[in-house]
Amino acid sequence: MLSLHGFAVSNYFNMVKLALLEKGLPFEEVTVFNTRSEAFLASSPRGKVPVLQTDAGFISETSAILDYLEDRGEGRPLLPAEPYARAQVRALMREIELYIELPARACYPEAFFGAQVDEAIKAKARGELLGGIAALKRHGRFAPYVAGAEFSLADIYLLYSLDLACEVARKLFGLDLLADFPAATELLARLKQNPHVQRVAADREAQMPAFLAMVKNQRQA
Amino acid sequence: MLSLHGFAVSNYFNMVKLALLEKGLPFEEVTVFNTRSEAFLASSPRGKVPVLQTDAGFISETSAILDYLEDRGEGRPLLPAEPYARAQVRALMREIELYIELPARACYPEAFFGAQVDEAIKAKARGELLGGIAALKRHGRFAPYVAGAEFSLADIYLLYSLDLACEVARKLFGLDLLADFPAATELLARLKQNPHVQRVAADREAQMPAFLAMVKNQRQA
Repeated sequence: MLSLHGFAVSNYFNMVKLALLEKGLPFEEVTVFNTRSEAFLASSPRGKVPVLQTDAGFISETSAILDYLEDRGEGRPLLPAEPYARAQVRALMREIELYIELPARACYPEAFFGAQVDEAIKAKARGELLGGIAALKRHGRFAPYVAGAEFSLADIYLLYSLDLACEVARKLFGLDLLADFPAATELLARLKQNPHVQRVAADREAQMPAFLAMVKNQRQA
Repeated sequence: MLSLHGFAVSNYFNMVKLALLEKGLPFEEVTVFNTRSEAFLASSPRGKVPVLQTDAGFISETSAILDYLEDRGEGRPLLPAEPYARAQVRALMREIELYIELPARACYPEAFFGAQVDEAIKAKARGELLGGIAALKRHGRFAPYVAGAEFSLADIYLLYSLDLACEVARKLFGLDLLADFPAATELLARLKQNPHVQRVAADREAQMPAFLAMVKNQRQA
């Protein structure tokens, strides 16, 4: 049995959770909030969620977990079989993570958790976000999925990165990242009709109050 | 024939170049300095080097290129065949990139190119770098390679991330990241004895004057 460790508010946790659901693999969830404990660090060296527990041991890093699930060869594939097509999906995954999710993440403390983010960091993130959206416009196929006709891991990255980035851009910069990007808006709406996506979102909402209370306690500690 | 586009000063370019050399795949190099041109952006949506030109088209993003080379199934494998062992290599690759290379990269303008980096950005990078080194100490096997007995893609990430990160930490923070990390120091020394690594380093040195002149011209433009 696979166990997914982390918490349902984490967008990276939800990337792996949705992949497991879409692949149809059985798994259990283990909620972990304290990611600084020595026990958790033994499974995730940088203290990041999610971690996948397998019969062989723990796997850290979302992209490594997602590749591992593909490498097992069980359930619905979420990467194309042909190497060049696989590479396009992987490039889109990385572009969405590096140039959209990570710059937005630098601003999460101010956008979502009532903290202040330094102006220089926000200015850098703003420029990177705009560059990331421009790159997605160039590379995304949106036909209708981001890499083409098939739902893939790149759609999972898009779903759990773009919404948060839009919220950061709106709240901190007064920008609508998708204003002239209807293809992305339509794909997000399509993805949100997926029952597995709805389940992940419901679990996230249900956990949010406990998560925010935990963040508040940590900041006061 | 595979063509690797970019420039020999880029550490990401050199990750792919070393992988091609270690795998024993024939390739040519195409030097591109102007990564903002429309022509280059058509091959690399975020304007990043390297790009791999294949018979099927262009592939952007270093990690996607490296996976593509493994997926082709030609030459010496640089990932283990067994899924869990592969996942450990992939997790190490990501941890080195996200928590060592990227924070160091935020400081490259000041460390290497005579520009100023904002104090808030440097302070964030410093904390992240220390966290990244701590994670590498937890996860790295160094037996003698970073993921175990075999040379892998994780060693390539280590080689082209850790030296630069150490230089950033020394110049900007007065820190020796490897002071109590002899296993990493020894592995770097071992990797530098590899003739392919020496060839990549020589090509980098040879291109450095032209690269620095280009950077200077861009800053004055």
